Amino acid sequence: MNVEKVSRADELNSILDAVYRIGLRYRDGALADYIPELAKAEPEHFGIAVATAQGRIYAVGDIEVEFTIQSVSKAFAYCLAVEQIGREQVLRRVGVEPSGDAFNAIEFDPGTNRPYNPMVNAGAITVAGILHERFGADAFDFLMERFSRAAGRRLGFDEKVYRSEAQTGHRNRAIAHLLLAGGIIPAAVDAIVDLYFRQCSILVTAADLARMGATLASMGENPMTDEQVFDLQAVRDTQAVMLSCGMYDYSGNWIFDVGIPAKSGVGGGIVGVVNRQLGIGTYSPRLDRKGNSVRGVAAITLLSEELGLHAFDCTNVGSALLGSFLS
Amino acid sequence: MNVEKVSRADELNSILDAVYRIGLRYRDGALADYIPELAKAEPEHFGIAVATAQGRIYAVGDIEVEFTIQSVSKAFAYCLAVEQIGREQVLRRVGVEPSGDAFNAIEFDPGTNRPYNPMVNAGAITVAGILHERFGADAFDFLMERFSRAAGRRLGFDEKVYRSEAQTGHRNRAIAHLLLAGGIIPAAVDAIVDLYFRQCSILVTAADLARMGATLASMGENPMTDEQVFDLQAVRDTQAVMLSCGMYDYSGNWIFDVGIPAKSGVGGGIVGVVNRQLGIGTYSPRLDRKGNSVRGVAAITLLSEELGLHAFDCTNVGSALLGSFLS
Amino acid sequence: MNVEKVSRADELNSILDAVYRIGLRYRDGALADYIPELAKAEPEHFGIAVATAQGRIYAVGDIEVEFTIQSVSKAFAYCLAVEQIGREQVLRRVGVEPSGDAFNAIEFDPGTNRPYNPMVNAGAITVAGILHERFGADAFDFLMERFSRAAGRRLGFDEKVYRSEAQTGHRNRAIAHLLLAGGIIPAAVDAIVDLYFRQCSILVTAADLARMGATLASMGENPMTDEQVFDLQAVRDTQAVMLSCGMYDYSGNWIFDVGIPAKSGVGGGIVGVVNRQLGIGTYSPRLDRKGNSVRGVAAITLLSEELGLHAFDCTNVGSALLGSFLS
Amino acid sequence: MNVEKVSRADELNSILDAVYRIGLRYRDGALADYIPELAKAEPEHFGIAVATAQGRIYAVGDIEVEFTIQSVSKAFAYCLAVEQIGREQVLRRVGVEPSGDAFNAIEFDPGTNRPYNPMVNAGAITVAGILHERFGADAFDFLMERFSRAAGRRLGFDEKVYRSEAQTGHRNRAIAHLLLAGGIIPAAVDAIVDLYFRQCSILVTAADLARMGATLASMGENPMTDEQVFDLQAVRDTQAVMLSCGMYDYSGNWIFDVGIPAKSGVGGGIVGVVNRQLGIGTYSPRLDRKGNSVRGVAAITLLSEELGLHAFDCTNVGSALLGSFLS
Repeated sequence: MNVEKVSRADELNSILDAVYRIGLRYRDGALADYIPELAKAEPEHFGIAVATAQGRIYAVGDIEVEFTIQSVSKAFAYCLAVEQIGREQVLRRVGVEPSGDAFNAIEFDPGTNRPYNPMVNAGAITVAGILHERFGADAFDFLMERFSRAAGRRLGFDEKVYRSEAQTGHRNRAIAHLLLAGGIIPAAVDAIVDLYFRQCSILVTAADLARMGATLASMGENPMTDEQVFDLQAVRDTQAVMLSCGMYDYSGNWIFDVGIPAKSGVGGGIVGVVNRQLGIGTYSPRLDRKGNSVRGVAAITLLSEELGLHAFDCTNVGSALLGSFLS
Repeated sequence: MNVEKVSRADELNSILDAVYRIGLRYRDGALADYIPELAKAEPEHFGIAVATAQGRIYAVGDIEVEFTIQSVSKAFAYCLAVEQIGREQVLRRVGVEPSGDAFNAIEFDPGTNRPYNPMVNAGAITVAGILHERFGADAFDFLMERFSRAAGRRLGFDEKVYRSEAQTGHRNRAIAHLLLAGGIIPAAVDAIVDLYFRQCSILVTAADLARMGATLASMGENPMTDEQVFDLQAVRDTQAVMLSCGMYDYSGNWIFDVGIPAKSGVGGGIVGVVNRQLGIGTYSPRLDRKGNSVRGVAAITLLSEELGLHAFDCTNVGSALLGSFLS
Repeated sequence: MNVEKVSRADELNSILDAVYRIGLRYRDGALADYIPELAKAEPEHFGIAVATAQGRIYAVGDIEVEFTIQSVSKAFAYCLAVEQIGREQVLRRVGVEPSGDAFNAIEFDPGTNRPYNPMVNAGAITVAGILHERFGADAFDFLMERFSRAAGRRLGFDEKVYRSEAQTGHRNRAIAHLLLAGGIIPAAVDAIVDLYFRQCSILVTAADLARMGATLASMGENPMTDEQVFDLQAVRDTQAVMLSCGMYDYSGNWIFDVGIPAKSGVGGGIVGVVNRQLGIGTYSPRLDRKGNSVRGVAAITLLSEELGLHAFDCTNVGSALLGSFLS
Repeated sequence: MNVEKVSRADELNSILDAVYRIGLRYRDGALADYIPELAKAEPEHFGIAVATAQGRIYAVGDIEVEFTIQSVSKAFAYCLAVEQIGREQVLRRVGVEPSGDAFNAIEFDPGTNRPYNPMVNAGAITVAGILHERFGADAFDFLMERFSRAAGRRLGFDEKVYRSEAQTGHRNRAIAHLLLAGGIIPAAVDAIVDLYFRQCSILVTAADLARMGATLASMGENPMTDEQVFDLQAVRDTQAVMLSCGMYDYSGNWIFDVGIPAKSGVGGGIVGVVNRQLGIGTYSPRLDRKGNSVRGVAAITLLSEELGLHAFDCTNVGSALLGSFLS
């Protein structure tokens, strides 16, 4: 380890510390409560992890607390669907356009019956339909295995959350019947919705999300294990959709303010991807009204500014900005 | 001039030639006809120009044909509004969210009365309102002078197009009255709409647009004249809005397929910006149903693929792809 | 029977004949084809029946051809729901506002999650939910018995249509899951949707619909059998909803042009009600794009004009008008 | 005068007294405040007048307080437009469908560019365009003369309200420009909007509105003066549109609960029409959120119930109901 690397690591660690301390000040937002299990999360938990394309990880806070991946899974499941049946086949069933609607909207593209994009529930259930069509009863094992390889460890599963979602997910079941009516998914509605509920109940940590993000950032290769996990072309498509559609009905503001592909889940996690550079994982269970983690959004926004991650950043804004937040 | 540079220039020229030849095959679309002057354009005109951040220009086809800038002006006017009154003040009056509606939609953000973004007419009229508030009767001269410096030459003005727009622009006048009703623009409705019609009637060429794009790509400095034309922060904001809202109700697909900030106009022009690398200008007056130049969209899409310009491109796709188009 | 009555009967018969002959000229529209059974109807079938509050029936054409009642059942099922649990309880679950949307829309009243009215599928499934909650497995027998008493004969049932609808009704199943998600119907989604499919598969004739309409017109008492079939208050509410919401996304024009409560079904039937005066039943299976029987709409419109049935009619338009149609 | 008539008059007076006393209990709602003059009304003012087709008037409360007619004028102006250019010509420019939108909505029928109906501002401005096209600068005198004959006295005009509306009516001006853009009104936008503002500023009393309503109810003949004021056919059409579209985005509930044609204005007035029987005028300036007079709606609803005015009423509900309100 040479001196320069040490000093850059020190700098990154100090930035992470500062971002963490700023994030702690955010106390608004509320736990998801549509199922009892999610409401049991510890509201103060907060963790930030950054995994680089070189295989290093920098972290602060509660980065080993497990939570359900929820909608963050949509990005990775989409990546696998593109790998399995190809971009064109996937595009026939689900679009790439931000909808401007809530994540659980039941509006489809009028011309094609397609869900607007794979990041809203309708699109994610369509992706589950694609994977179920291909793998049948093995679809969940396939997902779990790939997610685990991206995280670099065997991920767990929250049986209680899964059962709760399965019992109360009437709206998602309605969406699936509409997709069947529109010829978008096959008739195995119950199995497809079940796969979707299972996929959302996979347990991850902020560190896992950082590593999964770094795997996308590194052209599909996990930079910690050097294992190829995702298809190259699928990774590119996934990042594009995460940028335009990842943060719900917020895409223009996200591109304006933050400018990096990301995906959030009501479990409190967010994954961010800076192509060829790094993956970011955050965890904090208090959500804003759009369902995004309040501290997570703040942390990724600050990191983008501080590290000059925005796609169109012209300057190294430097620590002056961060200082102004801390003052 | 060393050997490597020569070979790269040759390569870029041959790519441009190939893209041009592919583009010529597109014969669909129709001339804008809402005012007689636009319907007089020569449908077969087609030009592509690329200006690099190093100050070189590569071009093919009808790159010196003049046409009215129309909505391409919205991007540059927005840049100037941000420079003049600051990001926050501009954000109070016009958002940065793709609307999913047509360019001449009259829907505003329900909570704030703001137009969704500066790339739809309502947002561009709001920007005109900001500039008129600041410069009064001199607003148009200010715009013209800055546009000209970005293009590196004194731009012209199409009096006939201007008069035609002024006579028939009832819908834009309606939008302006709605903006006044919502407290978004000041009471000088007629002068503001007039400024907007004038700004749209500025004459440019594909080469102008390439240079104007290169000026945005080079942190606001015209790389041909080394003159600082636009504010640094404003350039960043402009690129972000161009990426998410520049190609009308098409933002997600644009980010997915092309992935570079761009803005089109019904005059037939498109400007593209690849941050820190290059500006692209195209001209071809036949428009698709969304009002984008058919050949221009094809050309920029091909250039993005061939030159690996997409923000999330993982590979150098190489000439194989282009070959497949040509075969 | 005195002379005057004879002459009025003659007059009504001759008007019916004229209306029938005009109706025969309408050859546009298409058979419903979303299930194979409906597409097997004889396109030229056409019948008109008028049953008076005095218990007489006047008829012309194919008035004894049986067809499935389909959405015409929604009006009578609503009447029974109001009778069973009262106006206020029903209003808590389904509104009385025309939706402006198609009959199978999945939009609900944003404030309350209620379907807009009982004449769209979502509202009719809600009504089925109310009746299923009250009668359980006996709900269909209850409906069938009351419908039969209103028609004055034991109605039949089309098993094939029922099975076809049950197999393909994914959209209605989706709607039911949404209603469950919104707390509007109880959890027995499958049984409720099944009841709705059954109710739609009851077999009626144009004469049956005329008698059922006359029963509503006669304050709930079947004027042929002198049997009280429907609750008085419920009859009033049903007529009001039929007037404002009965003819799909067409309510204002219906009130303007025809002005009498009516309900159509994709089986080709329409029922009309002229309070305290008469019921009208028509059958012709070719439908316009809104799903209303083309000849049925024409016949009821002509009858309204010719007999001065419109609520706001100021004159006896007389046979001049009809003559002008025939000339 | 025979005994029976005396007793019926006594009965009607006592019902009016009771309705008035119930109405007084409503203290919610707020004065219109978009122009200062409207906010100066006395909030407690409340008057109810009923004018019969036989030329008698029954009244209680502040029935001689003058207020601006505002949107109540839309019904009568529509009646005159139909008279002047005929039903079909008017239908080509403005529909008869409730819009479900607010009164000042800027949504038009997508297929035809027509405003949805003449009771929303866009439709009323279109009607003003029709009358201006026909009468030019004399259009307002024409309106004023006919309104006055319907009221049976020379009506006044509120210059201050007119000026205030003219100064602040940016949204209505925007609507007019959109109508011009859509080819619905001629180019004299300013004169047409001015006519509309003038028409809204005519001064009436509750008694005037009752007489104007009675004129509609009596086939266009003022039953007090025996003068024919409105065209027969136009009266029918006007009543139909008042029923389906008169009470803003509330048509289905109005038909369900009240069932008589009516039109309200933000000045606090409501006119109701019971065909061939009577006209109702109410005044109370406190408005609900839809812009309808709170006490006026209550009064007309109670009168409808108490007098059995609902089109589908099956019973004479009798004083029991009113008693229950009073208890």
